[in-house]
Amino acid sequence: MMKIAVIGATGRAGSAIVAEALARGHQVVAVVRNAKKAQQMFANQVTIRQTDALAVSQADFVGCDVIVDAFATRQEATQHLDLAARLVGLYRNSESPRLAFILGASSLRQADGSLVLADVLAKNAGAAWVATPIQQAHEYTFLTWTENVNWVAVSPQFNFVPGPKTRYRVGKDEIMTNAAGQSTVTTGNLAAALIAEFETPHFVRQRFTVVDDE
Amino acid sequence: MMKIAVIGATGRAGSAIVAEALARGHQVVAVVRNAKKAQQMFANQVTIRQTDALAVSQADFVGCDVIVDAFATRQEATQHLDLAARLVGLYRNSESPRLAFILGASSLRQADGSLVLADVLAKNAGAAWVATPIQQAHEYTFLTWTENVNWVAVSPQFNFVPGPKTRYRVGKDEIMTNAAGQSTVTTGNLAAALIAEFETPHFVRQRFTVVDDE
Repeated sequence: MMKIAVIGATGRAGSAIVAEALARGHQVVAVVRNAKKAQQMFANQVTIRQTDALAVSQADFVGCDVIVDAFATRQEATQHLDLAARLVGLYRNSESPRLAFILGASSLRQADGSLVLADVLAKNAGAAWVATPIQQAHEYTFLTWTENVNWVAVSPQFNFVPGPKTRYRVGKDEIMTNAAGQSTVTTGNLAAALIAEFETPHFVRQRFTVVDDE
Repeated sequence: MMKIAVIGATGRAGSAIVAEALARGHQVVAVVRNAKKAQQMFANQVTIRQTDALAVSQADFVGCDVIVDAFATRQEATQHLDLAARLVGLYRNSESPRLAFILGASSLRQADGSLVLADVLAKNAGAAWVATPIQQAHEYTFLTWTENVNWVAVSPQFNFVPGPKTRYRVGKDEIMTNAAGQSTVTTGNLAAALIAEFETPHFVRQRFTVVDDE
């Protein structure tokens, strides 16, 4: 049994990760902006810490084996990078807690070797929301610079959809497809692959990706 | 007259920047780990704030027009990047204060287009100190991602030596040489170029470099 903190626990990825962690018998600390919302979602199954994600400190994570950064915002894309930098800064030269980051798919590579991000930018030039995939790609680059922290990161597929755990496959840095040829993963499958990685680490200081099998 | 905070004010670059700022009539806040040392160096010419650089907050910089990150350490090279990320995170979406970063020369380009860092790594493979030029190159990359903060950065030359302000030239992203063909700049000349940049900005969200003229 591990003690797993989840920043952004009430969000799309975060809530699936909390559910999977609890289902596998782990203890969960939900680090959230809105404690009332977390209480409604999780009742007494988790410990709730209400704080601004960007103000977290070591005091928020006492005794935790893993901290999952499932923070997401559509307002200020640079906050994804800022939170990653803050967490890394808190745990330089520590093997524990392990830090886990939910990235986007933008930093995955396509079959022709180009980044998914290049495709996204080509097709959506000028759209405000592309700031998020841009910053999440920076976040991944920042992590690749980080040798003195025990981190792992996971990218979903191009489509990251709410849905149950079914069956999944994992990969490394390339976009993947399901049996129907679609790059898609459910929140349940991503959560299951991530908790499995905590239980048996394979991707130490690496990023991996998850795809629906069917 | 500007109010200029200098993190690492008692260090090699920092102390030259404090001296130049005072000589040009600016007000200085010395942000230092060791207040006693700062008092011995600067007497009552500056306001002293004693704090761990990596714990600075907006409260340390009230009313400041510019914050200079002249922090340097030989122990934990990743702290250079962590402090830059912290300062950037504090002032996202602000035009003021301006943030100024003293980088190394490693992120400058040589005549053949390669980074100085490549040369440093080739000649000093395995040396512990190369962590600093590596992290300072990352710090520059991090800044190039930063579009919503009013930053400027300055790289010295390959040789960055204690010495007075004499005459200098500024450049952009390439290593430069003095009249004798040496890539060298004094702390006094770097400080003079930096304070001049604060007084009349030319390099908004850019890095520049300074070389001794003679």
